Amino acid sequence: MSEIRDIPKPAPSSGLLARLKGMWREIAGDDDDPIPALAPDLAETDLDGLRRQLRACLAAKGGEVSARGRAAALGRAYLSLSATGRARFLAVLAEEFGPDRDSVDRAVQALASASADERPKAEAALRAALEPPRLRLLTQFNALPEGVKFLVDMRAELMRLAAADPVLAPLEADLKGLLASWFDVGFLVLERITWRSPAAVLEKIMAYEAVHAIQGWTDLKNRLDSDRRLYAFFHPRMPDEPLIFVEVALVEEMAGNVQDLLDPTAPVGNPEQAQAAIFYSINNAQKGLNGISFGNFLIKRVVDDLSHEFKRIRTFATLSPLPGFRKWLDERLVKGEPGLLSATEHRALTRASGGLGAKGSLKALLAESDWVVEPDLAQALEAPLTRLAARYLTAEKRPGGLQALDPVAHFHLSNGARVERINWMADLSANGLRQSAGVMVNYLYDLDDIDANHEAYSGLGKVALSSRVKALLKG
Amino acid sequence: MSEIRDIPKPAPSSGLLARLKGMWREIAGDDDDPIPALAPDLAETDLDGLRRQLRACLAAKGGEVSARGRAAALGRAYLSLSATGRARFLAVLAEEFGPDRDSVDRAVQALASASADERPKAEAALRAALEPPRLRLLTQFNALPEGVKFLVDMRAELMRLAAADPVLAPLEADLKGLLASWFDVGFLVLERITWRSPAAVLEKIMAYEAVHAIQGWTDLKNRLDSDRRLYAFFHPRMPDEPLIFVEVALVEEMAGNVQDLLDPTAPVGNPEQAQAAIFYSINNAQKGLNGISFGNFLIKRVVDDLSHEFKRIRTFATLSPLPGFRKWLDERLVKGEPGLLSATEHRALTRASGGLGAKGSLKALLAESDWVVEPDLAQALEAPLTRLAARYLTAEKRPGGLQALDPVAHFHLSNGARVERINWMADLSANGLRQSAGVMVNYLYDLDDIDANHEAYSGLGKVALSSRVKALLKG
Amino acid sequence: MSEIRDIPKPAPSSGLLARLKGMWREIAGDDDDPIPALAPDLAETDLDGLRRQLRACLAAKGGEVSARGRAAALGRAYLSLSATGRARFLAVLAEEFGPDRDSVDRAVQALASASADERPKAEAALRAALEPPRLRLLTQFNALPEGVKFLVDMRAELMRLAAADPVLAPLEADLKGLLASWFDVGFLVLERITWRSPAAVLEKIMAYEAVHAIQGWTDLKNRLDSDRRLYAFFHPRMPDEPLIFVEVALVEEMAGNVQDLLDPTAPVGNPEQAQAAIFYSINNAQKGLNGISFGNFLIKRVVDDLSHEFKRIRTFATLSPLPGFRKWLDERLVKGEPGLLSATEHRALTRASGGLGAKGSLKALLAESDWVVEPDLAQALEAPLTRLAARYLTAEKRPGGLQALDPVAHFHLSNGARVERINWMADLSANGLRQSAGVMVNYLYDLDDIDANHEAYSGLGKVALSSRVKALLKG
Amino acid sequence: MSEIRDIPKPAPSSGLLARLKGMWREIAGDDDDPIPALAPDLAETDLDGLRRQLRACLAAKGGEVSARGRAAALGRAYLSLSATGRARFLAVLAEEFGPDRDSVDRAVQALASASADERPKAEAALRAALEPPRLRLLTQFNALPEGVKFLVDMRAELMRLAAADPVLAPLEADLKGLLASWFDVGFLVLERITWRSPAAVLEKIMAYEAVHAIQGWTDLKNRLDSDRRLYAFFHPRMPDEPLIFVEVALVEEMAGNVQDLLDPTAPVGNPEQAQAAIFYSINNAQKGLNGISFGNFLIKRVVDDLSHEFKRIRTFATLSPLPGFRKWLDERLVKGEPGLLSATEHRALTRASGGLGAKGSLKALLAESDWVVEPDLAQALEAPLTRLAARYLTAEKRPGGLQALDPVAHFHLSNGARVERINWMADLSANGLRQSAGVMVNYLYDLDDIDANHEAYSGLGKVALSSRVKALLKG
Repeated sequence: MSEIRDIPKPAPSSGLLARLKGMWREIAGDDDDPIPALAPDLAETDLDGLRRQLRACLAAKGGEVSARGRAAALGRAYLSLSATGRARFLAVLAEEFGPDRDSVDRAVQALASASADERPKAEAALRAALEPPRLRLLTQFNALPEGVKFLVDMRAELMRLAAADPVLAPLEADLKGLLASWFDVGFLVLERITWRSPAAVLEKIMAYEAVHAIQGWTDLKNRLDSDRRLYAFFHPRMPDEPLIFVEVALVEEMAGNVQDLLDPTAPVGNPEQAQAAIFYSINNAQKGLNGISFGNFLIKRVVDDLSHEFKRIRTFATLSPLPGFRKWLDERLVKGEPGLLSATEHRALTRASGGLGAKGSLKALLAESDWVVEPDLAQALEAPLTRLAARYLTAEKRPGGLQALDPVAHFHLSNGARVERINWMADLSANGLRQSAGVMVNYLYDLDDIDANHEAYSGLGKVALSSRVKALLKG
Repeated sequence: MSEIRDIPKPAPSSGLLARLKGMWREIAGDDDDPIPALAPDLAETDLDGLRRQLRACLAAKGGEVSARGRAAALGRAYLSLSATGRARFLAVLAEEFGPDRDSVDRAVQALASASADERPKAEAALRAALEPPRLRLLTQFNALPEGVKFLVDMRAELMRLAAADPVLAPLEADLKGLLASWFDVGFLVLERITWRSPAAVLEKIMAYEAVHAIQGWTDLKNRLDSDRRLYAFFHPRMPDEPLIFVEVALVEEMAGNVQDLLDPTAPVGNPEQAQAAIFYSINNAQKGLNGISFGNFLIKRVVDDLSHEFKRIRTFATLSPLPGFRKWLDERLVKGEPGLLSATEHRALTRASGGLGAKGSLKALLAESDWVVEPDLAQALEAPLTRLAARYLTAEKRPGGLQALDPVAHFHLSNGARVERINWMADLSANGLRQSAGVMVNYLYDLDDIDANHEAYSGLGKVALSSRVKALLKG
Repeated sequence: MSEIRDIPKPAPSSGLLARLKGMWREIAGDDDDPIPALAPDLAETDLDGLRRQLRACLAAKGGEVSARGRAAALGRAYLSLSATGRARFLAVLAEEFGPDRDSVDRAVQALASASADERPKAEAALRAALEPPRLRLLTQFNALPEGVKFLVDMRAELMRLAAADPVLAPLEADLKGLLASWFDVGFLVLERITWRSPAAVLEKIMAYEAVHAIQGWTDLKNRLDSDRRLYAFFHPRMPDEPLIFVEVALVEEMAGNVQDLLDPTAPVGNPEQAQAAIFYSINNAQKGLNGISFGNFLIKRVVDDLSHEFKRIRTFATLSPLPGFRKWLDERLVKGEPGLLSATEHRALTRASGGLGAKGSLKALLAESDWVVEPDLAQALEAPLTRLAARYLTAEKRPGGLQALDPVAHFHLSNGARVERINWMADLSANGLRQSAGVMVNYLYDLDDIDANHEAYSGLGKVALSSRVKALLKG
Repeated sequence: MSEIRDIPKPAPSSGLLARLKGMWREIAGDDDDPIPALAPDLAETDLDGLRRQLRACLAAKGGEVSARGRAAALGRAYLSLSATGRARFLAVLAEEFGPDRDSVDRAVQALASASADERPKAEAALRAALEPPRLRLLTQFNALPEGVKFLVDMRAELMRLAAADPVLAPLEADLKGLLASWFDVGFLVLERITWRSPAAVLEKIMAYEAVHAIQGWTDLKNRLDSDRRLYAFFHPRMPDEPLIFVEVALVEEMAGNVQDLLDPTAPVGNPEQAQAAIFYSINNAQKGLNGISFGNFLIKRVVDDLSHEFKRIRTFATLSPLPGFRKWLDERLVKGEPGLLSATEHRALTRASGGLGAKGSLKALLAESDWVVEPDLAQALEAPLTRLAARYLTAEKRPGGLQALDPVAHFHLSNGARVERINWMADLSANGLRQSAGVMVNYLYDLDDIDANHEAYSGLGKVALSSRVKALLKG
């Protein structure tokens, strides 16, 4: 789980279905070879009809326009299926509409015997032979009124199914490639979301916010007040569906506590006086676009926009969770890894936990969360936990040794940000305590250093740190 | 030359260049490895710098966002080059950024030794190995402010150059594939063009109209009057650039003369009373999208829109030129093909041409055009020329034997239209006489028959004909 | 209380105030004669400064543009005042900025001595002399960023205050005249409200709906579903503020029960199949536009729009409350008016109420509302109550004898509608029982009869009735 | 003939008429008392029908909505009339729909006998009695699809007619008052006009530009280039009709020659480098809004916008003609006013004109315009003519003694501008030589001084001058 995650909440298919039915009537109504009514689970007897329709689409029977209509009808049929039926539908696509084996083999032969001059052409021919017909079928679903969203959701479904059934993996990969081309960042539109935005869009923002859940329309309105900004990327064919969005607070200085930022009773600040823009929540909204990245573009575009609008803002930073910190720490505590606490820290903790005895061990303390309301304990915990958090962020790597273990850290470090400050008691929500013992981190985006930071991180795994964090690490 | 053609007229690059310069300043201004100023012809010494930049783009040095900035700068550099320089730039892309030979060979080996289960994965891996890096570079140019138009124009240039230099063909094919994905008809927006449309768009319409040239703003305004319609497809990233457009006249009955339709002094008709919609000009506007077809979608969308707006319209038909008719006929006349004229026709023509002797031969008459002002001659010519035109449209095929020789006929017959009527003295402009001896044809779009017509034509080369045209063919 | 009423709920002044402060900084910041900070109650000592500023506005000191800036600052000052302060501010405007007595008297003299030819000019001069300077001041408040809304709200305040203090009445009348000119129906924009409308607008719809209160965003979304319509009039200068709106249900036949219409669990109907459009709620949203009527225009525009969009809809009718029915009936029951119930009705009621004795009297029954859950009682009540409701709507008049006593009836009858059907147990909400014993009425809008119905009603007080209602009246 | 050329100015009435006919069909088609077909000159027999319709409108026969439809039909009838017919139509409105004499007299009586307390109410009643019914009729024309434009054009017609026929003056005054309320500056929308603006709007800009005529679409495009700005005020109900517009050049320093500014071959400047914004043409576009001023608002809004967009611009000034200068000077030359030229000036002129003798007199020289191509003469003329121009602008007043004689000077001085510089040989067009001997003037808008300048000018007739102009005046 990470700051950047996806949610399955909205089920827009019912409205979509209604529109598709209309579409179906319009386009396929007078078809002489109508799509038969399908059993929800797609009975064996339905499969032949399905194959025939898929082949008619590919052959563009009746011309390109009719083929699109037929594809739309197939899309509608797909939406009417049960989970089992959909899996079968996808399996037909994956298994029976791949590259033609003979054509591929012939093209491989031709390549083998091609002269140097002929080689580029032979390569192109082989590549064409390898392009599976199902890719053309997927493209045709674009004819549905909400065809792009249809394909994005189909990929989400495919990813889930392909995890269990490797036969679907090539189809999933084809669809990913198609979506990656269509969702090139050059086609995305950055929009500021305000209280004047369509309710249909705001509803999605509420559903998709997974980092700091939105409690309702009042909470949302508060996050759209004059000292807040919410930006999202959209695709022109999915105008009501944010792809990724970021929530920003315009404040006087680098924020260190997220409950303060979200407090609906806090007075509204004057954005003209703001000196810091805090990115306190970033959410990917479309599971089906997993692995097609535009988060880095979003952040830099927003930094650019804000720095033009508000001349006083000098600091662009996040206030981010460390979603894997507690898990990482607990593993070490369970193993009894030596040297996690310094002697001084250990003494302070023992003193502060008083008569607690074993219940006063770091592990027990974190499990109970009672320290939150015990000022002495909280103070004694600050030094070791912030130091360990800094270590977790900077030294712990995924297999391979370059990428940070923490997914949020990896995202921002890849973007060229710097670990600027570790904040103690920064997120005291249940989730914040469970994931990261209340610790949060500011990643700083300094446009002058971003490229160099990115290179050092992606090439060498080197994490950019502020002197403050460096000092913390040294204890 | 055809009804559906392209023109090179507008040279929007100057304005584009200005915007690019700004872009360049913004994005690449603080680059530590700046694009060097290039010699217009791209001197040999420039090539190394160019290669280095291209490789930096591919490596996403400094991160994805910086890579896009770098690509934009490269695009700017490309635009500043001479024709020679551009050809060299493209040759570098084509020759040095193709698929990696070793990776391809390894993937071919892996495919050869793959088990049946492993084969789909091995195919996908080979396809990935065959995907040339230059494709990623082309995609990155999308970062330019008018990046999509940039790539469309680059393909137009590539098509011209590749005709002479086959080394460029694979690059051209890559670009075509990219554009075909981006310009999928599902992403296009149909817009009605009116006198309230932006002047910037209207200016392009005037420049791109190649079938019946627009004489100026007054002529254009006349073509946008209340009894006329002009529809165009646009791409969201090229809002001022029509991709294809069609001009329609809403009239009382199927029109048989194009000068009447274009006459600016004719009274404005009442569209509510119209019973026929005549598509009198269809123009592809972007040479760089050659081979990526959406004309059939345009016509059917417009038929759909008009039939909803005007309930009385029953007839949807074109008024089209026969661009290759005279050329085809002259070849036969030169060869002295027997039986071109029936005995009756020959007698009538001899009588009408009176003392002209040899000058009265069909070939001479057509070359002189004087028959236009000689009623007797014109009348004597009608029977043979309309009959021959019908034969030309329906019986003359391209190599392969299925597709009509005439390109406009092929377009409409592929769409499922029917040859409805041959019109005598229908286009007496210089161009109309030179290309088709003044003959024009109505292709009828009857939605009930379109699919069947398309199938019969594309499968068997069978041309749908009205009974009137059938009778004409029988003489 | 009526179907058409106003609500004081939203207090948008806080946001407005914030924007005004910005405005103030911009415009009046460098004024050499700044508006002094005012005591909330507007102390006696503040009044001189206020007068000076008002006079400076009138004199356009520094030019028209500066005068507008000054007016905006005065508007801001007004908004910062307490209720007492505002009353004083308005009293100054009303009492000290009326017509100049001497000028009026001179113009009266001139009129008296004018010849017939001179009279039109003398009349115009007198009219000009009577135009109070405060009208010019009111107009200048239009310079505020939300100046039109400011004036609308000021009139709402004035109406309340003028009821107690007649000195304010002429100022209120001036403002009404100004708003009537600005809100001429020709300037209003009809908009359909959907779930894609700005949340800022939807929020207002929820606040202003007073006939059938909206329970929250989910209820609102339900009222915007595909088988519902919501239309509102807007003024270009108040884009987030609906002026009046109507909610419509597209259903199969004339609806007779409002709880059914509002039921969020009811299945969504197919609007294409609808044969009736039921206007089930009409709300005036701006108290300050009281007496400036556009409800009739709204209904007829919506009828027009819907009849173009849905060809099957034949019936356009309301489902309306009878807000004064119970009050009217209770007065008669208290007085013991003879003959309210027929002998048959009385017997049936006695029988149905069984052992209730005096508690079974009509008056007691209505007061208790228990009849709702007693089928026999409810059935026995239907005949007398629907008959009495029909009598109430058609025969009971306001003083003057022409206008219907019931305000909702008066509105629709003025518009030319017909009393079509009285519905029993049609609104069983607490409010529906309290106001109209659960009875509702359908007013039918038949475009062919509207003008004649209007003339008969407005000229003679004659109420158009369906034959069904006529029969009901006859018992 | 060129592709890009101009069209004889728009005659929008034909399009309007067409739309009105549709409107007429819709609204008045089923009227039981239809507007009879009228003779173009409005025969005596037509007048009774007209009066009846006007009275039906006033009585709102059939309700308010029908009354609007009736008014629209009357408007259509008006547009179909000849000039004579329109004059008669307007005379009926003016003479027969004025205030009711008896009501006025009664209200005058009531005022005379009112107590102090009763007086405000009596004044309001008298004012109501004086409000002519024709004002309500005028308002109802707002129901026409382009009703506001209709009324603006009607006032232009009335102004012309009222000059000859005083009976129309009160009607014209009523209409002016109505338009002044509707066109309050708070309702106007400032728009920047670009090459992406609708051709329908650009066409109007070309037609309405009267200061420096636009030569065609190419000239217009040049005036919309990146170093130019064109702003216009619009009314929401007249979206294609600019009310007033200003053309601005963004240049390096205060411009002194208008041909240089308009030169289409001049290189495009970089607006980011501009230090001066030169307002070189301001045009009122609607004759019917004469006397309803918003020019001052336009200039200050544009100054405000530009100073936000371009931080380097320090100078906001006009480059303006002196339309009455030659006329004023010639009168003095004809009268032989002594001392027009100083002795030095006279000597220089005599020397420069060499052997011209009497033809070398100032009057003769100006009449011939030959001096333009004679450098010596031109140089000798500079000193006296710029000095006299400065005198003309600053010392010559209209009757009353406060307002500048020159209308352009009066406009800018009222706005608070300063006479900054007199430019010699600044407009050598035929018109520029004929009106102002080629002299032009820069009026400077310095926001710090505008209010004080305005007060000094409007109160005392004092003209703000730069030190350079002061020096020039002293000779």
